Amino acid sequence: MEKFRQQKWKEDMRIRFDFNNMMEEFVGTEEGIQKKDILAMEDRIHRAAAGMKEKRKKGGMAWRDLPYNQAEVVADIKKTAAEIQRSFENFVVLGIGGSALGPIAVHQALNHIYYNELPKDLRGYPRFYVVDNIDPERMAALFDIIEPKETMFNVITKSGATSETMAQFLIVRNMLREAVGDKYNNHIIATTDKEKGNLVKIAREEGFKTFYIPAGVGGRFSELSPVGLLPAAVTGIDIDELLAGAAFMDEACSVDNVFENPAYMAATLQYIAINKGKNISVMMPYSDGLKYMADWYAQLWAESLGKRYDVDGNQVFTGQTPVKALGVTDQHSQVQLYTEGPFDKVITFLRVDRYRAEMNIPSGYQDMPAVSFLGGHSLNELIRAEQWATEYALLKANRLNRTIVLPEINPFTIGQLLYFLELETAFCGELLNINAFDQPGVEEGKKATFALLGREGYEEKRAELEKGLNKKKEYIL
Amino acid sequence: MEKFRQQKWKEDMRIRFDFNNMMEEFVGTEEGIQKKDILAMEDRIHRAAAGMKEKRKKGGMAWRDLPYNQAEVVADIKKTAAEIQRSFENFVVLGIGGSALGPIAVHQALNHIYYNELPKDLRGYPRFYVVDNIDPERMAALFDIIEPKETMFNVITKSGATSETMAQFLIVRNMLREAVGDKYNNHIIATTDKEKGNLVKIAREEGFKTFYIPAGVGGRFSELSPVGLLPAAVTGIDIDELLAGAAFMDEACSVDNVFENPAYMAATLQYIAINKGKNISVMMPYSDGLKYMADWYAQLWAESLGKRYDVDGNQVFTGQTPVKALGVTDQHSQVQLYTEGPFDKVITFLRVDRYRAEMNIPSGYQDMPAVSFLGGHSLNELIRAEQWATEYALLKANRLNRTIVLPEINPFTIGQLLYFLELETAFCGELLNINAFDQPGVEEGKKATFALLGREGYEEKRAELEKGLNKKKEYIL
Repeated sequence: MEKFRQQKWKEDMRIRFDFNNMMEEFVGTEEGIQKKDILAMEDRIHRAAAGMKEKRKKGGMAWRDLPYNQAEVVADIKKTAAEIQRSFENFVVLGIGGSALGPIAVHQALNHIYYNELPKDLRGYPRFYVVDNIDPERMAALFDIIEPKETMFNVITKSGATSETMAQFLIVRNMLREAVGDKYNNHIIATTDKEKGNLVKIAREEGFKTFYIPAGVGGRFSELSPVGLLPAAVTGIDIDELLAGAAFMDEACSVDNVFENPAYMAATLQYIAINKGKNISVMMPYSDGLKYMADWYAQLWAESLGKRYDVDGNQVFTGQTPVKALGVTDQHSQVQLYTEGPFDKVITFLRVDRYRAEMNIPSGYQDMPAVSFLGGHSLNELIRAEQWATEYALLKANRLNRTIVLPEINPFTIGQLLYFLELETAFCGELLNINAFDQPGVEEGKKATFALLGREGYEEKRAELEKGLNKKKEYIL
Repeated sequence: MEKFRQQKWKEDMRIRFDFNNMMEEFVGTEEGIQKKDILAMEDRIHRAAAGMKEKRKKGGMAWRDLPYNQAEVVADIKKTAAEIQRSFENFVVLGIGGSALGPIAVHQALNHIYYNELPKDLRGYPRFYVVDNIDPERMAALFDIIEPKETMFNVITKSGATSETMAQFLIVRNMLREAVGDKYNNHIIATTDKEKGNLVKIAREEGFKTFYIPAGVGGRFSELSPVGLLPAAVTGIDIDELLAGAAFMDEACSVDNVFENPAYMAATLQYIAINKGKNISVMMPYSDGLKYMADWYAQLWAESLGKRYDVDGNQVFTGQTPVKALGVTDQHSQVQLYTEGPFDKVITFLRVDRYRAEMNIPSGYQDMPAVSFLGGHSLNELIRAEQWATEYALLKANRLNRTIVLPEINPFTIGQLLYFLELETAFCGELLNINAFDQPGVEEGKKATFALLGREGYEEKRAELEKGLNKKKEYIL
């Protein structure tokens, strides 16, 4: 599709970053950011931009190349997806964190809201599930609604050693062998690192079709790799357009000048806000389709920026806590707090200019003004008005907010959005002088799990743990 | 069911509040709370407890009577539910905020995880939808999968004037009239205030079956009223047990002594934490079934406590921002931040002792220690180990955390949990000296919406708004 697109169409589909309501002219002097605050950061921004270039050159940001270097793998993905569409009723992703949140977000954005419940002829493609937890109730429930023999399982783990995913894999492999015998390997696709980990070894020995996550692409930056592209393609999403959107955003963010680079500006404003004590970042899409984009963003932002040490080894305990909200729904849940509570957050709206459906509100009840004013309008008008109204209410209460505008939701704009948020996150990491690409803080929990399940070599950890969790009864009510 | 339950069973099913990891003996002196910090609050706690009693006596907490005063309405709900089960394929709630979050949370907790996708004979009851947004794409999508003529719609709005719900109502009413003509009124049940608002008038004129939300029961405290009980009953949930659980928790929290009252202790600890600068409250259930309990809690906590003024009129800008997480899933998304980021949060785990399914992990790959250690265990053991491990990792990083333990998930424990959290919220409101039962901060947004849609009488507001949102182009990239 992409190659036929005109430049004009692309420009019309460009997502926009509106930060008026972060600025003091709008949100007030007490809370607002001044242009001179940004100008005063010139040196730091310059260093961060240089750092980004340096890292990209050295291969430390391989995710930035994904829009450009996957021609071969994309062809393979499309071919594989077509086979899956022909042969399977269900496509199930086994994965967690970065291996799950991207596929869920893109599916929700670009497929029918009730995709799995559509009759098969309207759906057109296999039913789609992402099993990103090990709750035994949920795992058991899954097998009430799918038949393993009609199902393709996509096991995704970058490290090939994720306990949750490998546990799911062991269960599914066993079920498949019972259901289809030796041919079970035709029901499993592995997506993992090419060199490291157990999954790639198992896949080779047992003959699973395998896709590789390129070296240097971390889990939370992997949605535009086979991690996200295969599930998207299987459910009929145009993955060329996703990648074209990412490339388009890469281009739009190619200048160092922060006043011309939307992702850099977005990061810079968050950096200033963090330094002003705004430790919460709310993402509030006004679209059910974009609901899980906020989940995907929550991992990206939290794991990348939540760090104890900066790159120079100073203890900084930095980070900003992401909060997922949904407009208009959470106007009836969270906006009371956002307008009247502490001045501790930045709210980022995701706005859609043109929805993919139109729904008119019939007139009625002329004697009831609180009902009749709705008639003759559409839900489209109502949701748009409510987004503006909320923006305005926050502004009046001097609350920092910004809006990312999508002209519409399609693979090209979603590709842009993913790339924009990845870039914002990476640049904010540079500004904070931390490593946005590791996650040392999760190691302790992993070791403790090994210890509790009696893995060899973790006996000491187990003793430590039992002591640490030896609770006082009086503190349990 | 409830009347046959033995006291012994109830005691076994009692949910427990474990706050060891809030205390300095465990989480360390820097962050931990000392017993003397709690004792020092004696006067304030005493006043708050007295305030609770006073309010209850005066009818200002009518939600506390719901476990006791609904015999008649419960009988009507059961009868109505049985008729719906016989006659309809789908049951759709039209509501938002407090009219939606409770029904969603209870459904997710107590019905099959993939309820709507189950074959009809396994499901047993109508498919269930809660439409809590006005996104036109979602509303249109709904009508791709349900037939209005096979559907019962439950319109829920306490005020009878909620724009979103009334807009949905206008659309659905029109569709029903096209589908079934004059009998459309047999497809609509109204749940609303008995006296106020438009919906009750419409319902009487057009002959809808109607349930009433008792006066003095606010939206976010209404789950145990017909708001939540009818949807629960329609999908086969034992609502007597829900109410019995709530009554049981009411009893467990009937003493003023905070060291014997789990809800009061929970509120007191949060109050101390808020005063220590912990402006974030994470709820992290280790159960997919309890996932939306965190959404329900997020409204309860945010709208009740997020307030600009205290009851004496002092400007306080108080509140704590709720964050929804899910174990183990968010260990791969948020726990990096929780262990290494700022010391700005309290994490509340929801733990389940016995899941309703058992899922064993088969052995395999003895040459791969990182996989083979899983074999012979169960997902049940793994998820429990991971919850402990995360608790321990947070403890080691000196992060405040607490655990609400559910012996299992059933209507009786869910009734307890709902009531426990409502009580914690109300008591925390008393400690903060704010009105936990209003939401003045959402009025500005409502007025702005009226103005933008051209409702009569809001012309001035519209002019003000257009001026306020007159953006600078240079701040849009």
